[in-house]
Amino acid sequence: MAPVHPLDPLSGAEIEKAIAVVTKTHGEVFFNVVSLHEPRKAELTAWLAAPATTPLPRRVADVVVIAKGGKVYDGLIDLASGSITKWELLDGVQPIITMEELQIVEHVCRTDPKVIEQCEISGIPASDMHKVYCDPWTIGYDERHGNTVRLQQALMYYRPDPDACQYQYPLDFCPIYDADKQAIIAIDVPNVRRPLSKAAPVDYHPAAIQKQGGYRRDLKPISITQPEGVSFTMTGREIAWQNWNFHIGFNYREGIVLSNITYNDKGDVRPIFYRLSLAEMVVPYGNPEHPHQRKHAFDLGEYGAGYMTNSLSLGCDCKGEIHYLDAEFPTRNGGVRTIKNAICIHEEDSGILFKHTDFRDDSVIVTRGRKLIIQQIFTAANYEYAIQWIFHQDGTIQPEIKLTGILNTYSLNPGEDTKGWGTQVYPGVNAHNHQHLFCLRIDANVDGPRNTVFMVDAVPSDAPVGSPENYYGNAFTARRTKLATTGASRTDYDGSTSRTWDICNTSRPHPYSGKPASYKLVSREVPGLLPKPGSLVWKRAGFARHAVHVTRYRDDELWPAGRHVPQTSGEPARGIPEWIGDGAESVEQEDVVLWHTFGVTHIPAPEDFPVMPAEPITLLLRPRNFFRNNPVMDVPPSFASTPSQVAAAAEGVLDAADKQVVTNCHVLHREDKSASLVLLILGHMARSHRFQHEDAFSHPSP
Amino acid sequence: MAPVHPLDPLSGAEIEKAIAVVTKTHGEVFFNVVSLHEPRKAELTAWLAAPATTPLPRRVADVVVIAKGGKVYDGLIDLASGSITKWELLDGVQPIITMEELQIVEHVCRTDPKVIEQCEISGIPASDMHKVYCDPWTIGYDERHGNTVRLQQALMYYRPDPDACQYQYPLDFCPIYDADKQAIIAIDVPNVRRPLSKAAPVDYHPAAIQKQGGYRRDLKPISITQPEGVSFTMTGREIAWQNWNFHIGFNYREGIVLSNITYNDKGDVRPIFYRLSLAEMVVPYGNPEHPHQRKHAFDLGEYGAGYMTNSLSLGCDCKGEIHYLDAEFPTRNGGVRTIKNAICIHEEDSGILFKHTDFRDDSVIVTRGRKLIIQQIFTAANYEYAIQWIFHQDGTIQPEIKLTGILNTYSLNPGEDTKGWGTQVYPGVNAHNHQHLFCLRIDANVDGPRNTVFMVDAVPSDAPVGSPENYYGNAFTARRTKLATTGASRTDYDGSTSRTWDICNTSRPHPYSGKPASYKLVSREVPGLLPKPGSLVWKRAGFARHAVHVTRYRDDELWPAGRHVPQTSGEPARGIPEWIGDGAESVEQEDVVLWHTFGVTHIPAPEDFPVMPAEPITLLLRPRNFFRNNPVMDVPPSFASTPSQVAAAAEGVLDAADKQVVTNCHVLHREDKSASLVLLILGHMARSHRFQHEDAFSHPSP
Repeated sequence: MAPVHPLDPLSGAEIEKAIAVVTKTHGEVFFNVVSLHEPRKAELTAWLAAPATTPLPRRVADVVVIAKGGKVYDGLIDLASGSITKWELLDGVQPIITMEELQIVEHVCRTDPKVIEQCEISGIPASDMHKVYCDPWTIGYDERHGNTVRLQQALMYYRPDPDACQYQYPLDFCPIYDADKQAIIAIDVPNVRRPLSKAAPVDYHPAAIQKQGGYRRDLKPISITQPEGVSFTMTGREIAWQNWNFHIGFNYREGIVLSNITYNDKGDVRPIFYRLSLAEMVVPYGNPEHPHQRKHAFDLGEYGAGYMTNSLSLGCDCKGEIHYLDAEFPTRNGGVRTIKNAICIHEEDSGILFKHTDFRDDSVIVTRGRKLIIQQIFTAANYEYAIQWIFHQDGTIQPEIKLTGILNTYSLNPGEDTKGWGTQVYPGVNAHNHQHLFCLRIDANVDGPRNTVFMVDAVPSDAPVGSPENYYGNAFTARRTKLATTGASRTDYDGSTSRTWDICNTSRPHPYSGKPASYKLVSREVPGLLPKPGSLVWKRAGFARHAVHVTRYRDDELWPAGRHVPQTSGEPARGIPEWIGDGAESVEQEDVVLWHTFGVTHIPAPEDFPVMPAEPITLLLRPRNFFRNNPVMDVPPSFASTPSQVAAAAEGVLDAADKQVVTNCHVLHREDKSASLVLLILGHMARSHRFQHEDAFSHPSP
Repeated sequence: MAPVHPLDPLSGAEIEKAIAVVTKTHGEVFFNVVSLHEPRKAELTAWLAAPATTPLPRRVADVVVIAKGGKVYDGLIDLASGSITKWELLDGVQPIITMEELQIVEHVCRTDPKVIEQCEISGIPASDMHKVYCDPWTIGYDERHGNTVRLQQALMYYRPDPDACQYQYPLDFCPIYDADKQAIIAIDVPNVRRPLSKAAPVDYHPAAIQKQGGYRRDLKPISITQPEGVSFTMTGREIAWQNWNFHIGFNYREGIVLSNITYNDKGDVRPIFYRLSLAEMVVPYGNPEHPHQRKHAFDLGEYGAGYMTNSLSLGCDCKGEIHYLDAEFPTRNGGVRTIKNAICIHEEDSGILFKHTDFRDDSVIVTRGRKLIIQQIFTAANYEYAIQWIFHQDGTIQPEIKLTGILNTYSLNPGEDTKGWGTQVYPGVNAHNHQHLFCLRIDANVDGPRNTVFMVDAVPSDAPVGSPENYYGNAFTARRTKLATTGASRTDYDGSTSRTWDICNTSRPHPYSGKPASYKLVSREVPGLLPKPGSLVWKRAGFARHAVHVTRYRDDELWPAGRHVPQTSGEPARGIPEWIGDGAESVEQEDVVLWHTFGVTHIPAPEDFPVMPAEPITLLLRPRNFFRNNPVMDVPPSFASTPSQVAAAAEGVLDAADKQVVTNCHVLHREDKSASLVLLILGHMARSHRFQHEDAFSHPSP
């Protein structure tokens, strides 16, 4: 299918065309990136405002190649004309590492004599080199090697059996791989050697479970079906669901990108976010021993959430009626690869949306909620990240990330102390402390692009107990602090004040509350960056120094650790710190981007091994003072009765109808044949646990 | 059904028996409480250890009555012998307010001349008094009235129509009701009057929605069924599910009580918690103007999560196969009332339990999780609280509370400033700032009763960047602080260190990690108590002064604001502060109870009105260093392939089987006919998006 929307990812044909244009001019090169160069905001905004009468923005390919001698070029290709509009040789920069580059390293290691020698020292005979594996990582930054040579570090493991979990047999040395030479150029060997563990294997694959008594048999199936199909409609890659409308993009770097997010508020299509994505992440490990400081993967900037994404046709990851979107990427040698089912889209029941019972008569309304989930799952060597963008009917957007997969591990000698930097999760297996810090890029558009961010803290009144203003001491309020400049926007989380951040349109005060239309960022899993100020990680991951930064929108300021992340030294820090500069720029009533770093600090435990039960982290973007009132009152209730209906039933007026309704409710309850049926209960009985007011009142007091 | 377990709530017959015993001796009284007096821990522990050979603990009724003249008695009734073993007259104490007592107040208000006069001042003619409603609250504590007279405050509202949401028409005065006299004894009238709002009604009931265009029609049903039934078994009120086993109790006060929670760890039945409950809560409002300081409901201690619980037969609250338990309570006059379906029990799919893909060959395992939910919903006048106790297969227990219902509101004149203490959510409707603070009582039993609590903070190494111990500055660890005494246990939340608390059995070090077997309290919604130290709420709600308190277990120390909460002054503070006393008592390797206060600070917004979309808050009790390794590897995967299977398929060995498996997967995926089917995929194709290592490696470098 040809792209129909300016934000649609490049099609296979477009990727091929861009590759052909480059190859024709520059000969044989390795293709690192061929991706949509998104239209400039001004141009796209004009088109979105009047798509029928505005010319489509030109389709442009953003290209990164590695040419002979490891030379790196950034280029732009105008696809209609087939012209190269930009071609820039980069110096001292390494672009993203592709899956193909990663795949090569293991094979080089297996035949490298120095690696074979180290394996033998570890207790692995040369004849067993096919049992030696490596997870190749970018080198991060190693001051001994700089950034002019394209390097990877090979985290080494042994698998006694091809089906064994390799992370239980880590090796203690670390080869350095030169991608241009396709050779091992050095090996980091620790002072204290840690030979191959002799522990028995512990595995999660089916044959291993069968050996230990097999799978549990006491889990009965749950069937989730949508006999009438889904509630959303797709037009190309635009989705419409429960007043929401947005475009679902996908790129090599961020994976899912959601754009032009609007909510139809009783006929008024209101913009909320211009663009939402997970824009970067960093996973610093806390073991200070060399060379573990190099373990701080920027999984998006160094590897790409798109490039690493799972084909959801391999593994049944969702339940219900699922809609899928594929992803197409260039191959290193100039072909095109397709990831089938890279994105899945489905609905889920989300429990009670609202309920209220009148305690006087048990009249009640209960309405169930629904959610829409746009999901991808990517595998970053050992870890998996399931990224869900959850849309709620009430206007809330909830990014949720489930962490699963396997801990990165290092070897530990019997009796060796982890010194608190890790946990022995299995004999000989040291899982180092680490953090997963994600950076959410919120390109705000709350009732239009000119927004202002306020930091909001719940605080007691300053007035002391006993004072006239606060005699009983119970006064508290929400203190709002305007983040007027990029410098002032650098703010941290404060759990003690339940700190949130409001993205406001101050020109749109709510008619009742007088407060500006806003979306509130409610995020409670916001550990600080634990690597210290001035540390290597702190320098490279400038975005992670604070929970929130706000910048003025600029085209191409998409990725908060910079465009090319591998082997950056952090001197100077790329991305957000350079964009903020002296911090003087106003972000008040401007087209702003809020960058939010959140995540989890993971002190491993044996329960996480040899495969980790999923641990979710989540946050909310909630409408506050945005809608006139509760926007979901028109969601059909699953049960409703009013006081007047209850009173009528109590008078015995509607017995037959009453019984019918209860029967319907039971059917709905048990089989949920029609959740959208409005059950106007015309009365009910079952009041044995309540009291006639008259009776109670007329009872004489003792 | 007769009770079969010592923790089963009193049956209707037992309640009747206790009432008969009391009535025979003491004549006509009002029954406030007739509830199970739980067996002493020593006795129950002995019975649990050998139920076949140990006599059942005696069944005892815990009774509270109000006799003539408002005299309050605490009593204990031995049910087998019919003897009263304790009968104590209480002084200056008011027991819980029952639903029946609440029901009376509105009727008294409607006929009280002074209330009628105030209504007329507000603009309501005397002929419309049937449209005047009140939500009667305990008075909290009012120093003008003390605690010798049983009082309620009547929060007044007007309903133009019986089906209208009353909270949109608050009245500005507050009658004080004497429960003994059944009369209004005073009315608090503000200096600035606020007549009845003239705003048009805004409503959520079906007729109102129909008037505004009707319900949305674009929501297709989701059907959730369990064709083979549920995966749990009930023996009386004991439930067994996925290695979990526990007893489900219920009382007037806490609602659901879960006891003797164990996990069958490969044949070893390991105790984890002796008893879990929500033991108290307080909802302080932040408006300092008199008499709003009295709005700080202790919904459990003053009204009872059991007494206020919904009959889930009135409103279809859950989906799937639901198991219900009823609740039985005394009536004021000595009868028995039954709440049908007070508790619902069901399973839900919980998404991916774990997944891992090998990036080399796309061999993959993906396993879906299941959760068990024990739920009740109670209505505290305007608010509803849906309490879910969620059990996960991996040993995690997740209490989750959904807040819905309607905001408590007060009147606001046109143009009046809320002064930041509330939000005008609708014309004339001021919703005051408030907190919902819940106290979770964790009676720990981690591998036995002798446990120790540690506070755990993720912190950077003290060593500076550049020092030999932390050259690259990336070192961080989990700092553990032992809470050795009750005084030291008073600790607050710290979001910046991702603070958690570990309940440890220090005599059970993990064989791999060396760390003690523990359950970790992971709670991220922990606002501090915003009423200031020394304030009325601070004095009365001693439990809410800190996020965590640890006390030595003592029978009957169940409720952290004390046994009788209404009209306590907080001088001295009851419950936790009196139990902790000077703080010197050791809680190291003792039978300990951890009290955790968590919740949410709610700054209202118009989206919350006239009925509030559910807002969930949650926390986790997670096993850490408790299990040998991942305890859910034997949950049947929905899809699994191993490297050796993928390799076999790549060699073309198993094409037919391959196709069959993919078909099975598709069926499973779409209809999930058998989630427990182990799909050993014997190979798969679809490798178009990956590369033969050999190809990539043999490609010459440019």
